[in-house]
Amino acid sequence: MSQQGITPRSDDYSQWYLDVIAAGELVDKSPVRGCMVIKPHGYGIWESIQRDLDARFKATGHVNAYFPLFIPESFLSKEAEHVEGFAKECALVTHHRLRSKEGGGVEPDPAAKLEEPLVVRPTSETIIWHMYGKWINSHRDLPLLINQWANVVRWEMRTRPFLRTAEFLWQEGHTAHATEEEAMEEATRMLGVYRDFAWETLAVPVIPGIKSATERFAGAEETFTIEAMMQNGWALQAGTSHFLGQNFAKAFDVTFQNTDGSLEHVWATSWGVSTRLVGAVIMAHSDDIGLILPPKIAPIQVVLVPIWRKDEDKARVLEFADKVQASLGDSVRIHLDKREKMKPGAKYFEWERKGVPLRFEIGPRDVDNNSVFCANRMGGKKFGIPVDDQFVPFVKTLLTEIQQSLLDTALERRDANTHAVDSYDEMKSSLEQNGGFFLVPWCDDAEKEREIKDDCKATIRCFPLDAQGQVEGKTCFYSGRPATHMAIFARAY
Amino acid sequence: MSQQGITPRSDDYSQWYLDVIAAGELVDKSPVRGCMVIKPHGYGIWESIQRDLDARFKATGHVNAYFPLFIPESFLSKEAEHVEGFAKECALVTHHRLRSKEGGGVEPDPAAKLEEPLVVRPTSETIIWHMYGKWINSHRDLPLLINQWANVVRWEMRTRPFLRTAEFLWQEGHTAHATEEEAMEEATRMLGVYRDFAWETLAVPVIPGIKSATERFAGAEETFTIEAMMQNGWALQAGTSHFLGQNFAKAFDVTFQNTDGSLEHVWATSWGVSTRLVGAVIMAHSDDIGLILPPKIAPIQVVLVPIWRKDEDKARVLEFADKVQASLGDSVRIHLDKREKMKPGAKYFEWERKGVPLRFEIGPRDVDNNSVFCANRMGGKKFGIPVDDQFVPFVKTLLTEIQQSLLDTALERRDANTHAVDSYDEMKSSLEQNGGFFLVPWCDDAEKEREIKDDCKATIRCFPLDAQGQVEGKTCFYSGRPATHMAIFARAY
Repeated sequence: MSQQGITPRSDDYSQWYLDVIAAGELVDKSPVRGCMVIKPHGYGIWESIQRDLDARFKATGHVNAYFPLFIPESFLSKEAEHVEGFAKECALVTHHRLRSKEGGGVEPDPAAKLEEPLVVRPTSETIIWHMYGKWINSHRDLPLLINQWANVVRWEMRTRPFLRTAEFLWQEGHTAHATEEEAMEEATRMLGVYRDFAWETLAVPVIPGIKSATERFAGAEETFTIEAMMQNGWALQAGTSHFLGQNFAKAFDVTFQNTDGSLEHVWATSWGVSTRLVGAVIMAHSDDIGLILPPKIAPIQVVLVPIWRKDEDKARVLEFADKVQASLGDSVRIHLDKREKMKPGAKYFEWERKGVPLRFEIGPRDVDNNSVFCANRMGGKKFGIPVDDQFVPFVKTLLTEIQQSLLDTALERRDANTHAVDSYDEMKSSLEQNGGFFLVPWCDDAEKEREIKDDCKATIRCFPLDAQGQVEGKTCFYSGRPATHMAIFARAY
Repeated sequence: MSQQGITPRSDDYSQWYLDVIAAGELVDKSPVRGCMVIKPHGYGIWESIQRDLDARFKATGHVNAYFPLFIPESFLSKEAEHVEGFAKECALVTHHRLRSKEGGGVEPDPAAKLEEPLVVRPTSETIIWHMYGKWINSHRDLPLLINQWANVVRWEMRTRPFLRTAEFLWQEGHTAHATEEEAMEEATRMLGVYRDFAWETLAVPVIPGIKSATERFAGAEETFTIEAMMQNGWALQAGTSHFLGQNFAKAFDVTFQNTDGSLEHVWATSWGVSTRLVGAVIMAHSDDIGLILPPKIAPIQVVLVPIWRKDEDKARVLEFADKVQASLGDSVRIHLDKREKMKPGAKYFEWERKGVPLRFEIGPRDVDNNSVFCANRMGGKKFGIPVDDQFVPFVKTLLTEIQQSLLDTALERRDANTHAVDSYDEMKSSLEQNGGFFLVPWCDDAEKEREIKDDCKATIRCFPLDAQGQVEGKTCFYSGRPATHMAIFARAY
């Protein structure tokens, strides 16, 4: 990518995504294969996501804790499906010391080989359920509602910033319950938390649903998901919540004494979202100019650009800009761009590419008028805003309107690109021409699911919760047998 | 430790520390050597620390970012002293896949051996300066003021919860500057931020100073430190800020074009504090009953314990407790302990051991009086507080007073146990009898420093900044030569 150019979405959607990330200064490549450096502007988005989600987790009774980065190799084998899903591509620690190498440099010291290799956590069910075995004895210890903010590592071969990287940041909730019903309630509650968060905060109208067995988390009885539509019509799995049944409790022998004195295995859930959400936001909202950020997660919501030509104007323009900043300071995340020897146009260009929702230009005439000249990242004519007692509420209203407008636009796009079809041929030709989501009657069958994937690269994103009532009396769009589910098929990241 | 007993400090200080941690449910042992599990109550303290420090970092112009967990082995060798200090005991990733083992289980797949082993970061100077080399070209790119919240791993042989663990959580600031002066200003500014934070938020009256060359960070030109005194008179290094000179810029060839067009190497600082601070707080304030937490970092500042005997009282007691909670909810971190089938006394015991500063007991008579019955974790007679329009400010004042009183007590203890001595014999005998800090005139000499350490296990904690004016005309307490510094010696964690 040149400093100037962002590849248009219509030319090359994948390159556009990489260009937007580079122009927005969100990440950089690192010297470690598959690992990204999250630059301050990108990390600021993740901080906004963390702050909002953390409050939602606490409001639903969860507390945070921290478990070790390393997991003994043998732990992964304890849950049969889990090891299949996660033990394959992971980072293994085998030595605990370097020694000097002949000819310079260092190398692992053979004398410091670990007796049992350690796995860098790809997810923490195993070590957490080992600990829960120590903490849970009685029904009084339940429910246990714990979340962890952490880094995890999965050795991915093909990586893409935010969407798929070897190391990524995430949260993982792990809860323990006395009954199946309570655990299922928790799994669906957290799906709801994710769904509300995506709609309200990310302005991404995700579809909540259930995964098919093929796409289920390794070790889960049921996986719930929120699926987002990107601007190219592809799907992105934005968060998952798993009902784990008693699988991990049995693998780690975690039982509790029930009110009647009997010993029972504990019921479990786990749920997580990751820095992948930043990728979802970028691909849901941004345009050919660069990044567009929903105000609720924008690290900077309003940028102030002071403008002067004559030296005599400089002091009063900056003084007024300081005043504007101070008046908004507590209500809005604001940045005053005081850099000198940089033309206003270059600043506009930079902040637009960084997705700042509102830009206030402040020149001598604005100072005279006691107003700012406002540009909206979403477009439209620039306009003046008086800096009077209605200023702060007015700016907050503008940000609220941008947030709503992003959601409305994404929802319209999602609905316009979601097609209810009855035959596979119809889906296949439409998918190849226009992409999008396909809502179809489906007879659950993993073999046929694979056939479809091999044939047209579409997979079942989910069985949307709100569409299951439509299935009765329908026949499967692929096999012609009686349908068991309404499914959404799409190509996916 | 039994469920009931905490070893008194006077019997066995080390065991007391472990007992307080267990009784307060702060950490648990993990199945991974040297790694701890931070339980919710312990993690809540770390969250308070993070929230407070993060605001101080941002107020001084820093932004957060995230760099990879893994560092290529070869990077560590680039800075000669740094590799000596950090390459020794570290976790090494050598493989990226597990395979099934004959007879069950899994093992590293020899076909998936990495070409270059990766080090799990013990600190991030090397990878960050590699990236800074890509980001810094001109004086316009400086200063670069970045902080990272992360986990790091140092393979420690002898571990102790919070104080020394293989994996720990920390923040590491890494800044780049155009001049030596600016970098030195930054290093001392961050020392000041740490000092203020420790005094104001942790109520720990740390002493800011400079490390001797022996205790300096591997790769630094100068290391600044804050040193805390524990109740047994031992010192604990609570945070460090390093002036790195141009060492890392030269090792990674990071130059910038100055205003006059010349290319110069960049000047650097780094600074960090870790979960070790939680250990410092525990050892600075707690007593033989258990944990005592400064209100500013207590995850729960006020616990409400509703009390009823007759069923007819239950509803009105709980209703009133809800009302009290609601009235304080936004101003104070409050927890209403509604657990049934648990006697009030058992609840008091638990919350005292968890260090909650204030406990409000609410029984039927308190409801009648529209008041709560208040117990202060610091001791003293219990007393009633009317729940009227002065209730919220009164409770906030109580918490402020507790915070101040903890600092006052710690400061008195520190001063009472800091001894200005003129001869080594005097220090040695006093150290063995009473412990404490020893302020002495010192002629900087690494060899003699080692002699003293070998002889009496005391090391130089720092050259306290505010005492250097006293050195003139004094002779070294050990060598008799003219003194160059005022030094504090102590035994240290």
